[in-house]
Amino acid sequence: MLGNFTFHNPTKLFFGEDALDNLGNELRLYGPKVMLVYGGGSIKRNGIYDAVVAKLEKAGKKIVELGGVMPNPTIDKVREGMALAKKENVDLILAVGGGSTCDYCKAVAGSTYCEADPWDYYFNNWGKMTCRWIPVGCVLTMAGTGSEMDSCSVISNHHENRKKFYYFRNPDFSILNPTYTYTVPMHHTVAGIYDIMSHILEQYISGNDDCTTDYIAEGLMRSLIVSSRKVLTAPTDYEARSNIMWTATWALNGLIACGKPTDWMVHMLGQAVAAYTDATHGHTLAAVSGAYYRLLIERSDDAVKKFSRLAQNVWNVVSDGKSEKEVALEGLELMESWMRQLGLSMNITDCGANESMLEGIADACPINEGGYVVLTRDDVIEVLRRSL
Amino acid sequence: MLGNFTFHNPTKLFFGEDALDNLGNELRLYGPKVMLVYGGGSIKRNGIYDAVVAKLEKAGKKIVELGGVMPNPTIDKVREGMALAKKENVDLILAVGGGSTCDYCKAVAGSTYCEADPWDYYFNNWGKMTCRWIPVGCVLTMAGTGSEMDSCSVISNHHENRKKFYYFRNPDFSILNPTYTYTVPMHHTVAGIYDIMSHILEQYISGNDDCTTDYIAEGLMRSLIVSSRKVLTAPTDYEARSNIMWTATWALNGLIACGKPTDWMVHMLGQAVAAYTDATHGHTLAAVSGAYYRLLIERSDDAVKKFSRLAQNVWNVVSDGKSEKEVALEGLELMESWMRQLGLSMNITDCGANESMLEGIADACPINEGGYVVLTRDDVIEVLRRSL
Repeated sequence: MLGNFTFHNPTKLFFGEDALDNLGNELRLYGPKVMLVYGGGSIKRNGIYDAVVAKLEKAGKKIVELGGVMPNPTIDKVREGMALAKKENVDLILAVGGGSTCDYCKAVAGSTYCEADPWDYYFNNWGKMTCRWIPVGCVLTMAGTGSEMDSCSVISNHHENRKKFYYFRNPDFSILNPTYTYTVPMHHTVAGIYDIMSHILEQYISGNDDCTTDYIAEGLMRSLIVSSRKVLTAPTDYEARSNIMWTATWALNGLIACGKPTDWMVHMLGQAVAAYTDATHGHTLAAVSGAYYRLLIERSDDAVKKFSRLAQNVWNVVSDGKSEKEVALEGLELMESWMRQLGLSMNITDCGANESMLEGIADACPINEGGYVVLTRDDVIEVLRRSL
Repeated sequence: MLGNFTFHNPTKLFFGEDALDNLGNELRLYGPKVMLVYGGGSIKRNGIYDAVVAKLEKAGKKIVELGGVMPNPTIDKVREGMALAKKENVDLILAVGGGSTCDYCKAVAGSTYCEADPWDYYFNNWGKMTCRWIPVGCVLTMAGTGSEMDSCSVISNHHENRKKFYYFRNPDFSILNPTYTYTVPMHHTVAGIYDIMSHILEQYISGNDDCTTDYIAEGLMRSLIVSSRKVLTAPTDYEARSNIMWTATWALNGLIACGKPTDWMVHMLGQAVAAYTDATHGHTLAAVSGAYYRLLIERSDDAVKKFSRLAQNVWNVVSDGKSEKEVALEGLELMESWMRQLGLSMNITDCGANESMLEGIADACPINEGGYVVLTRDDVIEVLRRSL
């Protein structure tokens, strides 16, 4: 069943090996000054920077550069970008990088012309974005966050040990060339893959009715599992990389949340761990998933039913002669063995967390209310302890 | 594998039992004059007309009415709508009806301010739409065509015995309330369901690589089968009606064609039959599907592989000890038994066609080149004959 909702996702996506060829036409829609934003500089080594700059120059754009966006972009860095965007009065912000760079550019685009400081206004007080938006384009170099077709921006504040999100506005366009992900190190490739899987699961593992949205989610998971296994041994397999990149986009652009409840608790837990350890996003999600999902299965019959369905429809568990709970747990075990195959962090100790941090991490962890079980603070500590 | 493509679908969708409550806000975006377009008048009997008019009046709009849009809208009727839209200088065209009414409104919206006649310009010569577009909104009362979130418009010309399509532009917004479909007669409900299934199959039954798009298509088909069986005996089951309506939208809004070949031959055949018989769209598709798909299985190993995958992933055929072709045919048989359960036309004789029309129908049938087999004109006749 699909409840009331609005779906409106106007981002223009250009996909494929030749996707960057569309940049020139897009640039015509915007003014002369482009702020080119990127991360640690890998794009200068793999040729993507040169390819993008050539397109900008051909289009006669004046380039304002801002590099050094970190994997968990900070609010301090956002303020730096806002100052530059305002001073240079840029017409377009072009992110070249992964989800962090896209997220960062949305925060700058939505905050520059607001009077209040974005940390207080958006990320803490949940003010509504009403000030002028600077158009944003993304040239994606990693698959995972879905930032290329959603409005979400996740920003960290290390002064306060917090990692928070706000829904700004979608990128106006995104360029998705799967070959750009060939050189992403395997540690980050698999983190992206688990981020995708977690996005799908966190929208799927909730609700107990028959809903088209869940069937779409199952299709996405089946595709992701097949392609993720291929990419482990064949990092330049276009078929696998293109499927992973596209799955990432649809895992978090609104579609698989349509008309149903969602449960983002794994992201809440993982982000709280990252706020303390600065560990890679996807690995923190993997590290807390097993303990959280087992707790759901222990506490909720609806969760047992949904994990049993997941086991059969996605992990091909045969249910004959087994209890629903056995089927559910068998599916979870297959998922965990897939996670180990990928080389994901299976506990938060590997992410740099320890017993002494648990209270602090729990303080940093908001409680989600849409899922099968609403955790207490003690439950959060329990899940974290089981994840050590 | 996903080849090069662009995905851009900016239609704003309001879904659910309360979806119409969003109309007032949307109307603020447009000028004072609204052309209200509908079909045979069923919306006056079931209360939808009154509900929409109340919203229009509350928003202070001046209403220009145009009723009588027929199930296969004609080019003559399009010309009538163009004249009215131009004379009244309307600011918004609001379709209240099924896919035919939406299709019709797109044709009027895209043709009114063009100098050339739309039949020659769009439907025959494939000119590009460049003249002024009149904004379009759709209040959907049937599920099937996907017209609410795509740019396609199918128009018939009975003077020439032709039924043709053109890609105009997406509706600016669409309102999808599943309860509006409760009173659709079962003959048309099942026609819509098979139209949806055919849209999915015609994008799925092509290509031979591993592609995320196909996994999404499988999810949509699985959901459709479950809900279609429910609605047969429970036409006011919200869960089933909402799933069918949402599946219809995603079956033909671009997503499940992304990065892959497609094969629209069943639509070409069905539309050619309808051009001669004026039979209901979904029934004409059902009537030619079996013969066409069997011909693909006879002629192409890739088709055998894809139908075998379909059989296992959608129709739950167990493949143990069977040849790939046996699995493929078993799946097709299960599909046909589902079609008979729905009460679809299983041959073109039931649609009003006969032997003497076959040459004429073949003349009206364009040949699609994206599929496993490119038909000759003799093949078209053969498929039609087997479909009698």
